[in-house]
Amino acid sequence: MEKRLEVCLTPALLDLYAIEDSIVVVIDILRATSSIVYGIENGATAIIPVAQVEDCLNYADQGYLLAAERNGEVVQGYDFGNSPFSYTKEKVGGQTVVLTTTNGTKALHLARARAHQVVIGSFLNLKPLCDWLKLQDKNVLLLCAGWKDNFNLEDTLFAGAVVAELRKEFSHFDDSSVAAEDLFQLAKNDLRAYINKSSHSHRLAALNIEEDVKFCLQLNICSAIPVLQGEALVALQA
Amino acid sequence: MEKRLEVCLTPALLDLYAIEDSIVVVIDILRATSSIVYGIENGATAIIPVAQVEDCLNYADQGYLLAAERNGEVVQGYDFGNSPFSYTKEKVGGQTVVLTTTNGTKALHLARARAHQVVIGSFLNLKPLCDWLKLQDKNVLLLCAGWKDNFNLEDTLFAGAVVAELRKEFSHFDDSSVAAEDLFQLAKNDLRAYINKSSHSHRLAALNIEEDVKFCLQLNICSAIPVLQGEALVALQA
Repeated sequence: MEKRLEVCLTPALLDLYAIEDSIVVVIDILRATSSIVYGIENGATAIIPVAQVEDCLNYADQGYLLAAERNGEVVQGYDFGNSPFSYTKEKVGGQTVVLTTTNGTKALHLARARAHQVVIGSFLNLKPLCDWLKLQDKNVLLLCAGWKDNFNLEDTLFAGAVVAELRKEFSHFDDSSVAAEDLFQLAKNDLRAYINKSSHSHRLAALNIEEDVKFCLQLNICSAIPVLQGEALVALQA
Repeated sequence: MEKRLEVCLTPALLDLYAIEDSIVVVIDILRATSSIVYGIENGATAIIPVAQVEDCLNYADQGYLLAAERNGEVVQGYDFGNSPFSYTKEKVGGQTVVLTTTNGTKALHLARARAHQVVIGSFLNLKPLCDWLKLQDKNVLLLCAGWKDNFNLEDTLFAGAVVAELRKEFSHFDDSSVAAEDLFQLAKNDLRAYINKSSHSHRLAALNIEEDVKFCLQLNICSAIPVLQGEALVALQA
C-alpha cells in the first residue's frame, strides 16, 4: 500500500484531507500539546480538551483541575493555563485536567470528528511518537494548530521534524510536508533563534514566557504519547 | 506607517487577511499568471479571467480568443489553455483573450471582491513588479493560487522571491512570508530541481509540459505588470 504522510498547515485547511483512515497528530508547540505531553508523562490520569472556557465549568464539581488559556494568558478564576510548568508531577499526578486553549483544543475537536485515531505531538516526545507511527500501517496527517487559523512557524517546524524522521517509511508526501521538512533542516541547529523570526515573537516576549518557550523546544525528554479515547486524552498503551 | 507584507498560502485562507487597503499580487506560476504576464507583454489588449468554462461562451461572438484549462489540459473546443507558448505576439498581439483556469482565475476573483488593487506576478516579471511595489504606499498581500485550495511549492517560492526583494521596504511580515523567503533562498540556485520535489511533479511530467515549466521559471524576461481594471487584466501604465 502507498502510505501517505501529509502536513495540514492550519485547521482551516483540514477539510481538504481525507483522514477517515489516518492517524492525525495534533501539534500546538507553544504551548498546548507540549503541556499535554508533559502532563500525561507526569501521571495525569486524563486531560479533557473542551472548546469553550464556559465548558470547563461543567466539570467544576467533579474534582478536576480546570485549565483555561485565551490569547496566551490564564483565564481569571482558573487553576492554570497552558504553561508546561503547571503540568508537573506534583500538580497533575493522579489528576484529571479539563483544558481549553486558543488553538490546540479547536484542532483536536476538528480532527476527532473524522480521524481514525488522534494523538498528540511535541518536541518533548518526538522520537517515541515517530517510533510508534512507523509501526502503524496507516496514513499519517500532521495537523498544525497554527494561530487563529493562520500558518505559524513553530508548529510547521515540528511537522518537518516528524517528516524527517519518517521519510523512509512513507511513499507519498504533499508539498507542505516537503516545505516543512526543509524549514526544519534549516532551523534545527537553533530552533529558538529560528522562532525569533516569527511574527508573534514579540507577542511571546510580552507574555513573559521565555522559559516556557525554551522548555517546549527540548527534544525527547518524554516517552508518553497522549491518545484521544472518547473525549479524553490518556497515555497510549504501547 | 507600518507597511505589511504578507503571504496567503492558499485562496482558502484569504478570509483571514484584511486586504481592503492592500495591493494583492495573484500568483499561479504553473501556468496561469506566467502566461498572463507573457500575453500582456506581447501586446494582448486585455485578458478577461472568468470562473467557469461555460462563462467563456458569453464572449464567443465578440471576436475574442477563448482559453480554457482544467486539470492542466486545454478544454476541448477552445482556442488554447494556459501554456505560455499560446501567448506569443503572433497569437495574442492586439487580441482580447477570455481565460478560465483551475486555480488562477478563482484566486483572481476572490481577490477582486475586496482588494484595493489586484496585479499579476510571475518569475517573468519579478523585478519590474517589485520595483513598482516599492513605490506604492500600500500594504502588499502575495496570494498563492495553490492547487485546488492546497498549498503548493512553486507559488510559495515565487512569493518568497518577492519577500526577498522587498524585505527592506516593509516593517511587518507574517510567518508565511518568513517561511516562503527561506524556501526561496534554499531553492533559488536551481528552481527547476527544487520543484521536482513537488507532489505534482509526476502530474506535470504526465502532461508533457516540461518546456512550459522551464519557460515559467525564467527571471525578468518581461517588463509588463498586468493589473485588473474592472473585469479585465490590462497593462499597468507606470
